[in-house]
Amino acid sequence: MKILLIHGPNLNALGKRSREIYGNKSLEEINGLLQQHAGELGANLTPFQSNSEGDIIDFLQKESGSANGIVINPGALTHYGYSLRDALVDTGLPVVEVHISNIHAREGFRRESVVAPVAIGQICGLGWRSYAAAVRFLVSSEKQDVY
Amino acid sequence: MKILLIHGPNLNALGKRSREIYGNKSLEEINGLLQQHAGELGANLTPFQSNSEGDIIDFLQKESGSANGIVINPGALTHYGYSLRDALVDTGLPVVEVHISNIHAREGFRRESVVAPVAIGQICGLGWRSYAAAVRFLVSSEKQDVY
Amino acid sequence: MKILLIHGPNLNALGKRSREIYGNKSLEEINGLLQQHAGELGANLTPFQSNSEGDIIDFLQKESGSANGIVINPGALTHYGYSLRDALVDTGLPVVEVHISNIHAREGFRRESVVAPVAIGQICGLGWRSYAAAVRFLVSSEKQDVY
Amino acid sequence: MKILLIHGPNLNALGKRSREIYGNKSLEEINGLLQQHAGELGANLTPFQSNSEGDIIDFLQKESGSANGIVINPGALTHYGYSLRDALVDTGLPVVEVHISNIHAREGFRRESVVAPVAIGQICGLGWRSYAAAVRFLVSSEKQDVY
Amino acid sequence: MKILLIHGPNLNALGKRSREIYGNKSLEEINGLLQQHAGELGANLTPFQSNSEGDIIDFLQKESGSANGIVINPGALTHYGYSLRDALVDTGLPVVEVHISNIHAREGFRRESVVAPVAIGQICGLGWRSYAAAVRFLVSSEKQDVY
Amino acid sequence: MKILLIHGPNLNALGKRSREIYGNKSLEEINGLLQQHAGELGANLTPFQSNSEGDIIDFLQKESGSANGIVINPGALTHYGYSLRDALVDTGLPVVEVHISNIHAREGFRRESVVAPVAIGQICGLGWRSYAAAVRFLVSSEKQDVY
Amino acid sequence: MKILLIHGPNLNALGKRSREIYGNKSLEEINGLLQQHAGELGANLTPFQSNSEGDIIDFLQKESGSANGIVINPGALTHYGYSLRDALVDTGLPVVEVHISNIHAREGFRRESVVAPVAIGQICGLGWRSYAAAVRFLVSSEKQDVY
Amino acid sequence: MKILLIHGPNLNALGKRSREIYGNKSLEEINGLLQQHAGELGANLTPFQSNSEGDIIDFLQKESGSANGIVINPGALTHYGYSLRDALVDTGLPVVEVHISNIHAREGFRRESVVAPVAIGQICGLGWRSYAAAVRFLVSSEKQDVY
Amino acid sequence: MKILLIHGPNLNALGKRSREIYGNKSLEEINGLLQQHAGELGANLTPFQSNSEGDIIDFLQKESGSANGIVINPGALTHYGYSLRDALVDTGLPVVEVHISNIHAREGFRRESVVAPVAIGQICGLGWRSYAAAVRFLVSSEKQDVY
Amino acid sequence: MKILLIHGPNLNALGKRSREIYGNKSLEEINGLLQQHAGELGANLTPFQSNSEGDIIDFLQKESGSANGIVINPGALTHYGYSLRDALVDTGLPVVEVHISNIHAREGFRRESVVAPVAIGQICGLGWRSYAAAVRFLVSSEKQDVY
Amino acid sequence: MKILLIHGPNLNALGKRSREIYGNKSLEEINGLLQQHAGELGANLTPFQSNSEGDIIDFLQKESGSANGIVINPGALTHYGYSLRDALVDTGLPVVEVHISNIHAREGFRRESVVAPVAIGQICGLGWRSYAAAVRFLVSSEKQDVY
Amino acid sequence: MKILLIHGPNLNALGKRSREIYGNKSLEEINGLLQQHAGELGANLTPFQSNSEGDIIDFLQKESGSANGIVINPGALTHYGYSLRDALVDTGLPVVEVHISNIHAREGFRRESVVAPVAIGQICGLGWRSYAAAVRFLVSSEKQDVY
Repeated sequence: MKILLIHGPNLNALGKRSREIYGNKSLEEINGLLQQHAGELGANLTPFQSNSEGDIIDFLQKESGSANGIVINPGALTHYGYSLRDALVDTGLPVVEVHISNIHAREGFRRESVVAPVAIGQICGLGWRSYAAAVRFLVSSEKQDVY
Repeated sequence: MKILLIHGPNLNALGKRSREIYGNKSLEEINGLLQQHAGELGANLTPFQSNSEGDIIDFLQKESGSANGIVINPGALTHYGYSLRDALVDTGLPVVEVHISNIHAREGFRRESVVAPVAIGQICGLGWRSYAAAVRFLVSSEKQDVY
Repeated sequence: MKILLIHGPNLNALGKRSREIYGNKSLEEINGLLQQHAGELGANLTPFQSNSEGDIIDFLQKESGSANGIVINPGALTHYGYSLRDALVDTGLPVVEVHISNIHAREGFRRESVVAPVAIGQICGLGWRSYAAAVRFLVSSEKQDVY
Repeated sequence: MKILLIHGPNLNALGKRSREIYGNKSLEEINGLLQQHAGELGANLTPFQSNSEGDIIDFLQKESGSANGIVINPGALTHYGYSLRDALVDTGLPVVEVHISNIHAREGFRRESVVAPVAIGQICGLGWRSYAAAVRFLVSSEKQDVY
Repeated sequence: MKILLIHGPNLNALGKRSREIYGNKSLEEINGLLQQHAGELGANLTPFQSNSEGDIIDFLQKESGSANGIVINPGALTHYGYSLRDALVDTGLPVVEVHISNIHAREGFRRESVVAPVAIGQICGLGWRSYAAAVRFLVSSEKQDVY
Repeated sequence: MKILLIHGPNLNALGKRSREIYGNKSLEEINGLLQQHAGELGANLTPFQSNSEGDIIDFLQKESGSANGIVINPGALTHYGYSLRDALVDTGLPVVEVHISNIHAREGFRRESVVAPVAIGQICGLGWRSYAAAVRFLVSSEKQDVY
Repeated sequence: MKILLIHGPNLNALGKRSREIYGNKSLEEINGLLQQHAGELGANLTPFQSNSEGDIIDFLQKESGSANGIVINPGALTHYGYSLRDALVDTGLPVVEVHISNIHAREGFRRESVVAPVAIGQICGLGWRSYAAAVRFLVSSEKQDVY
Repeated sequence: MKILLIHGPNLNALGKRSREIYGNKSLEEINGLLQQHAGELGANLTPFQSNSEGDIIDFLQKESGSANGIVINPGALTHYGYSLRDALVDTGLPVVEVHISNIHAREGFRRESVVAPVAIGQICGLGWRSYAAAVRFLVSSEKQDVY
Repeated sequence: MKILLIHGPNLNALGKRSREIYGNKSLEEINGLLQQHAGELGANLTPFQSNSEGDIIDFLQKESGSANGIVINPGALTHYGYSLRDALVDTGLPVVEVHISNIHAREGFRRESVVAPVAIGQICGLGWRSYAAAVRFLVSSEKQDVY
Repeated sequence: MKILLIHGPNLNALGKRSREIYGNKSLEEINGLLQQHAGELGANLTPFQSNSEGDIIDFLQKESGSANGIVINPGALTHYGYSLRDALVDTGLPVVEVHISNIHAREGFRRESVVAPVAIGQICGLGWRSYAAAVRFLVSSEKQDVY
Repeated sequence: MKILLIHGPNLNALGKRSREIYGNKSLEEINGLLQQHAGELGANLTPFQSNSEGDIIDFLQKESGSANGIVINPGALTHYGYSLRDALVDTGLPVVEVHISNIHAREGFRRESVVAPVAIGQICGLGWRSYAAAVRFLVSSEKQDVY
Repeated sequence: MKILLIHGPNLNALGKRSREIYGNKSLEEINGLLQQHAGELGANLTPFQSNSEGDIIDFLQKESGSANGIVINPGALTHYGYSLRDALVDTGLPVVEVHISNIHAREGFRRESVVAPVAIGQICGLGWRSYAAAVRFLVSSEKQDVY
């Protein structure tokens, strides 16, 4: 099972940006932890980060054919990335939207996700474990013994 | 570690109500799966369900003193249960809000959660696995090897 | 044919509360008139009143299995009782929402019914006869000669 | 007792238009059933349909002097027919607003009735029986033994 | 100087409809007073009333070529008569909008006029004298000694 | 008959400010024309202008006891002068609100008058003749032969 | 193939009304050009214009049975003609909404079309060619070689 | 004089919940201070607390017959307790709404009180003295020498 | 202890203005009663009234240095007096906002207070006793035996 | 005549994405058909697609100097691409906005176009023929015999 | 070159009011620094401060005839001073609006400026240097070598 | 001192685009003037322009480590560039937002800046001098003798 693990704008700065909100781990550390976790579950992660909406769409179009699911933290594109939203729909893959922080408890504009309506679900506020829960969920759809 | 597992109005009808939305498992089955899962993780669940907001608040006031975290699916109280919200804050415990369905992709009124701003995070759309991910998350704050 | 006849908060005060709006008949008198009328039509009414949303949901869950329809005046729960709404959907029964007064000609908040979208129809403003019309309608779905 | 029975725009197409919403009966059949039913109750119906708001106002001005009540399904004028609303007030007669479908469970714009605030009550969602219930109610104000 | 004096829906019922709001004079009496007043000022009135927006537009298209100004009380069309608004613009004539009652002190929907933005001015609340003031104003644009 | 003629902020600049909107006449010229016109009708005007809401309220409290009516152009206070509104109500006198320009055809904020709901009527868009029409109207309530 | 070509209120004034917006061609000229164009494509147009919403609904009810599609410029009814909207749905025919001007670039109220949600598409801003494009489209659904 | 002293959801946790907002006194202490104060003024308090809206309504219906006034802190029901509002109206007693904190300086949802429009007045932000001021006020309506 | 007692626009008309809302006592009588009451509690009142927002700000800037608290009824400035709000904050003193009438039960615009968010609390609807309760509260912060 | 034919994000996936909405033709097929069609009309198309708003702006800045018109389907940028909008204005060329589907009959957010106010017109819902109609329109401005 | 330097309500308290927002310099110090800076640039400042909107309008009317530009910090009048806005327009002078703090990053009501639409530009958040930048800008329109 | 000078989409077209709004100077000329001015003040500018939000974020992440401040004109990204906003926060540098035109006096959408809440201040409407004032301000934080 192959899962696309997508990080939107500014998430390459994890570990440096507002740590009280986003935690201390760098994106490389998080990707490492997730790949190890996925490996144990028998899954394969393809991580990707870009600060450009267009590049993420290009990536989705190129890679989605050989993948089985998508875990995405759209960063601030969450709130206006309608093109990204359409690209996610076009993949035909199950999408789980994740956020490190609880976007429902922050500034007003962060409560509105334009991606959520086309995702299977949304996980937020669990720190980097939001990603882990999403990966597990996608695996569980193939492996009944994974919760 | 003791976790309060709270189900709001109508969730005692799981397995019978709109199965295309909420799945086939009964509340008892879900509680059973979750308790088994929690047990494997070394945690202890105290499930509670009520159709009355007042009863849930009573339960929270009585039980929160001996607990370490709360997993709650507030049912439709999600959208107007300001008293429940205040009671959750008063416990001083970490709260994870869960929903079986993706509330962001349903009727407009279901997109607004009055509970989310006082929770650590929200997980929705993963079916009964929304609960499982929430339990895992609460355990992971104590056990570093749990993702 | 068995019909659940449900009265929400404060309706047990009928006959005493704002008579210029709600009329002079007590809830007992109204229930009596309706039962007599239903009897003539060959139907059976099970009346229930509570000031608590939770109790009404409990009643619906317990009684709906043996009933054929629901006539409900949700009282002020009309405007925020999303849990009641979900419970009504869960019964799988035809629901007719009634109001003694014309809720569309009163304060702004009374014009919005969160129950109406899951009911077959809504009858308001006919005084206690709003109930009578609802009962007749439910009977007519079984008896073609009843208008 | 003489009752004006008014049907707004497009209701002359009943029986042909969206049957899953409006039912299979033609306007003539409905008028016939209602006249028979009214006759049994000792009342007299004067049916009128027009696709033009102005014509309905003309009719109201001409006929209301000799009538005792009005049953009206304003069709889509329900949502913007402020002139019709004023004309109904001017008659000084009791008005019952009816709708075949449950307008509260359809598109957003159909939930707002500009006529309801000047009516005695509103009945919707009972199919053609919405009219029947309205007629019975108007008769009951004269005949105490009619529910 | 020829002035079109247009009365919208329900204004033919003046003298009978809600007298505490609209006064005791009939439309005929008002037209008479205005024609006398206009005559003294050397102007000529062409009165027209219809309950139908379409008829008023037809009238405007036919008569505006030979007229010098328009005094219009659009009745409830004030609030939604966008077609009437377009027709008034098409005449190329100066338009004064009048209302017998103070529309800014009544129900919320009456405060918004879709006609006002294409009129020279609006006069409301002066009873039938709202018309008289409008007629005087149009005359004053030709006769400098009329206030 | 004594009428208070009140001009709000910036109206002392009439004749100099945006002439395409407000015309070429100075406030003194307008007051002169109005006093002459009022004199012919047998009425007496007491003009007052201030750029300060507080001063206008002071004036109203001091002078209203000996007056029979108020003509007021509140200037931009029209849109937020709630204290002025209260002061006008406190006088117990009939108030006619006037505007030189058609406030309903300008910027959005100018369409809302907080004064209009406590006035008898509103006249706008007739240039300085808006005042003249208001004065005539107040006189006509005492002199039946004035239109 | 027979196409109903419907023009709403004020469109009979084309060629005379605001030419900078609506162009110089009269409605007769436009109908002529369109009929010639349709003829070349093997289609047949039935033009109709009225200033009255009710008359357009009457026309639709009478003619739609023998037609294959509708091209409609609802004029200002675009913004409030809910009865017209219902009538268009009732025809069961494909509807293309056209506007001569770009309604999305004019006053705010013109951006909202109550007709668009029940049409196949909307064409605006192409001048009279908006109609031509709509006719071609309807023909192309029958003739594959027509673009 | 007998006054009902009602505390809504979560107020039984006073002294423990967010002390920086609600202060250090327990509900028992506050009730004690108020009863002592009322005693000195010659009045009698009947305190009641519940986390359930239904229970408060039951209490009001049972006790209001023998009482002369109501002091109520509705807790979070302030913002959505329409059933409670109706019950308060039904008592026919003077109601004073109190809040320990200044609800107008907190989250947006706390600024809207659905109870206030049916109360005589509202007192907030004075800590437990909000209750004391309300009690004094109710007593003062009987005893002229109490401020 | 010195308390500034500030009355906003139109409050100098108390006793004459709408008595059914504001009561029969004049401002002088109220000031007298309050000064007597304050004297008994050992406090000193400095009353001030103005119809001008600017004058009230001047007074606050000059007098607040020597005062210990502020009781203010901002009159209609409550709803738009942002400058007054800033001036109150600048004093650094505890502020209690009072209203004679229950502003939450009147016109919509009166429910919004721009002052409340910078006050300690708000008291409304108790007639002139709203002031008395505010004075007592400010004194009680120095004298523990005053409720 | 040279026309820029611009496709926004995700349109390179045409033929694969939601075919019931967007049809079966690939972007290459559509471009081919359009180029053939344009050739027959004597015009020249320069197609361009990108998933990045920035790249489209770069393209517009480089190519618009030698072009005569623009046909653009902005994809989801339609709803938030204010930078694209500014770039279109800067070209000084006539712009026709096209959409394959009827954006007015889909999700709410798709009804708002930030591009439409700066375009000549908008064509939607005609499938790939929306493009064809736009091309034809631009050609027709040069060639009178093209409809 | 003569520049009017206007400070609205509460700005005379600079140096004392909320220093963390408005800085430590008094208004006199700021005026001094600005006059020195303006002198070096060859310009002349006329400072004015008032807590009353009316007084500022009086000042503008009296002084604007001999001035070449206006720098204004309207204080809280920024958010509701429509009369001030009109007065600024009437001067016919270039206006630069300044704020010491970043009004776009504070309470919601501070983000809306009713003055900005009639100013040349707005400078905020630079502390007292917001004024300096505005003065330099006005001078630069006369002296090309000043940036 | 090193300052990043960032220009968003379409600003490379300065000097060509709508000159009546944006002026005649090209971006190169503006950058030249600013660098000269900064040089005189002892500061160093690093200019950057891109039409792509992603590229600007990349630039910020790479260059902010060695810079002391940011002057940014986000172009139309001002209104929806939430990713850019986050990137600006992540730099930890002082940011001044500038606009050539007065965005508060143009289309409604241009009045809302999503960047302003995370900037120190905003300068708009001064033409290219908006940049100059921003540069001076950043320098003044290091050099006390620069205003």
